[in-house]
Amino acid sequence: MKLSQYFVKTSKNVPADETARNAQLLIQAGFIHKEMAGVYAYLPLGLRVIDNIKQIVREEMNAIGGQEVQMTTLQPKDIWEKTDRWDDKKVDNWFKTKLTNGTELGVGLTHEEPIVDAISSYISSYKDLPFSVYQIQSKFRNELRAKSGLLRGREFIMKDMYSLARNQEEHEKLYEQVAEAYHAVYKRLGLGDSTYRTYADGGIFTERFSDEFQTLSDIGEDTIYLDEAKGVAINKEVYTDENLAKLGLNKQDLVEKKAIEVGNIFPLETKYTDALDVYYTDEDGQKQSIIMGCYGIGVSRLMGVIAEHFADDKGLVWPDNVAPAKVYLVRIGASDEVVKQADALYEHLTSNGIDVLYDDRDMRPGEKFADADLLGIPYRIVVSDKTVAADTYELKARTADQAEQISFAEVSKTLGIVA
Amino acid sequence: MKLSQYFVKTSKNVPADETARNAQLLIQAGFIHKEMAGVYAYLPLGLRVIDNIKQIVREEMNAIGGQEVQMTTLQPKDIWEKTDRWDDKKVDNWFKTKLTNGTELGVGLTHEEPIVDAISSYISSYKDLPFSVYQIQSKFRNELRAKSGLLRGREFIMKDMYSLARNQEEHEKLYEQVAEAYHAVYKRLGLGDSTYRTYADGGIFTERFSDEFQTLSDIGEDTIYLDEAKGVAINKEVYTDENLAKLGLNKQDLVEKKAIEVGNIFPLETKYTDALDVYYTDEDGQKQSIIMGCYGIGVSRLMGVIAEHFADDKGLVWPDNVAPAKVYLVRIGASDEVVKQADALYEHLTSNGIDVLYDDRDMRPGEKFADADLLGIPYRIVVSDKTVAADTYELKARTADQAEQISFAEVSKTLGIVA
Repeated sequence: MKLSQYFVKTSKNVPADETARNAQLLIQAGFIHKEMAGVYAYLPLGLRVIDNIKQIVREEMNAIGGQEVQMTTLQPKDIWEKTDRWDDKKVDNWFKTKLTNGTELGVGLTHEEPIVDAISSYISSYKDLPFSVYQIQSKFRNELRAKSGLLRGREFIMKDMYSLARNQEEHEKLYEQVAEAYHAVYKRLGLGDSTYRTYADGGIFTERFSDEFQTLSDIGEDTIYLDEAKGVAINKEVYTDENLAKLGLNKQDLVEKKAIEVGNIFPLETKYTDALDVYYTDEDGQKQSIIMGCYGIGVSRLMGVIAEHFADDKGLVWPDNVAPAKVYLVRIGASDEVVKQADALYEHLTSNGIDVLYDDRDMRPGEKFADADLLGIPYRIVVSDKTVAADTYELKARTADQAEQISFAEVSKTLGIVA
Repeated sequence: MKLSQYFVKTSKNVPADETARNAQLLIQAGFIHKEMAGVYAYLPLGLRVIDNIKQIVREEMNAIGGQEVQMTTLQPKDIWEKTDRWDDKKVDNWFKTKLTNGTELGVGLTHEEPIVDAISSYISSYKDLPFSVYQIQSKFRNELRAKSGLLRGREFIMKDMYSLARNQEEHEKLYEQVAEAYHAVYKRLGLGDSTYRTYADGGIFTERFSDEFQTLSDIGEDTIYLDEAKGVAINKEVYTDENLAKLGLNKQDLVEKKAIEVGNIFPLETKYTDALDVYYTDEDGQKQSIIMGCYGIGVSRLMGVIAEHFADDKGLVWPDNVAPAKVYLVRIGASDEVVKQADALYEHLTSNGIDVLYDDRDMRPGEKFADADLLGIPYRIVVSDKTVAADTYELKARTADQAEQISFAEVSKTLGIVA
């Protein structure tokens, strides 16, 4: 994309109404637009980041047999009454609305009930199970306060998967597959080294633990106790001697850390399937309960986490797989030779499938460099009269201290273009 | 995808609560799930159709420089009060909700106001214009009745684009570019031959016409008068002698047709930009109004239109570009040779980038053929003891009367696999 044609501009001013660093940076860089507290629109580069995260999550869910669907935002109340999750006294963060005839509707805050309802017509025999379905979609939660930017939104993008199994053993196999897939997701997102599976409270209808995936971070709201050798942690909420014994963890191996939750997986037992009257018939003709798991990843939250986790004092620093473009091409000056060579490089890179932000704007070099840093694009390449004269390109990785002057062939090699 | 692992099943029963043929067929084929009247979830094959339509629309919008964003569903009321579109007496199909503190919010029914508000901080000078932004996203309209399946939903997926121009000439250039892009979209969707640009009412704040794109269809709610030679039509709403004269159309060249609207493009003049106080400064330092256009394509409606338009008495018939898979591979029997050859063909096709539904289920051939027809997949290929013995494959296009016995090389050729 040529920045002369891009409608968004960066801003030097930190937004006065944002306290969260992720929101400040993402707004200054023009990735998001604040509609109201906890509700953000995605501008073109922000949408690219969201799409990159979505695609990684999608590929890993597909790899373990997840089947993608898209449930609805508008929700009829009857299915939620069956599980006693309609009453605002029971679930206090619904957004609700009404049909013109006065019928109350919910605005999707989660989807266990509609998923179970939708699949119920396809399950009768043991032959119809097991399977997992997922979606990637906006959710709505009526949070009292929303001050953490993308970390806790009123409207946010989430991947939620649901597994349905015939027995506990089958459930646990699916559950562990998802846990592995989650590790793969965080690794691809650049968070692998700092994200740990963490035992947490399983909720009111199971004695099991749930599992959170926690990324170590000073901005985290959670406190976890990490066993680095084993690569697992336990959430402070359930940090008791009894639970440590149950989990085979030793207090002396654990280090207290601040962390932020970037995913969770949950045993739902048979709560929702039983409540919505969905069973299967086993090999012996007996009616049996269906064991369910649910698995969430906050896609827009991850964008906020990644933004905040990697940022430095100059701005955003996107990991390669998430970045909205791989190269920020700075053209300095507008001499025929410079324009020709910068245009040619842009053409070479894009025709080789590399996303480039081409800064062809009529602006001072310092402003272009500042934008390249603020936007956090992995590689910056400069074409100027100086580089043209030397027959080189100036390349600097966003995370490097120094730029280097390299040949055309070396540019291609660095960016993984096969000659 | 192997159908033995696919969780959805087709149904022989026409859903009792649906009168629209598109909804009946799509539910029977397991493409959609009805959440409530006018609100449908997309099951895996349905989601693939939606994604295919989205991608075609996206590519054509990008090709004319459209910049993709994603606005929010939750809407603050203040920006809508500025244009006098908040009051339920003025706009009667809002869904509204509330924050816990009682603040009223809208649930996105359209996005002119939030788009203009979001881009306002990026426009000051004439150098910042023109540009076009678009999104593809769920919209919510509180329709009194919703009986037409995907043709008129309460929650539906739409592409909406907005152009911003410095003067009427520039606006008209953008407007005509979008009209051309729309023709390209309908052509790629298989509706090119039956879809016409149609003059329609421009609304209350312009004396210009708007343009609808109407697909000829007996199920259409609209009546249009078509000049086949010129390839344009006029909506009955504005079919007056005065308008015919204005448009240079002659009554004797026009044929009355039933049609369904599959897109519309609209001159908004300066209504929204002026109301939201967004102007630009021209070359002479003068403050100037911004001329806006808006351009809609109903993505989920198109899924319904295509479903209904091409269906025959056996079920759905998807055009190639829209189909959720290209091949429906029927394995008859389970002898070692049949399994081996069907598996090998599945592997050959998928590794060549062809989407295949592999019917490896333990079911009677007649049931598999019926599903292949109902799902509307472009090509059906049968592998059976008979074809194995003859060293052929039985191939039938969904729209063909007869199956043919062809060689492996001919299968590859028919499906466009380059050897």
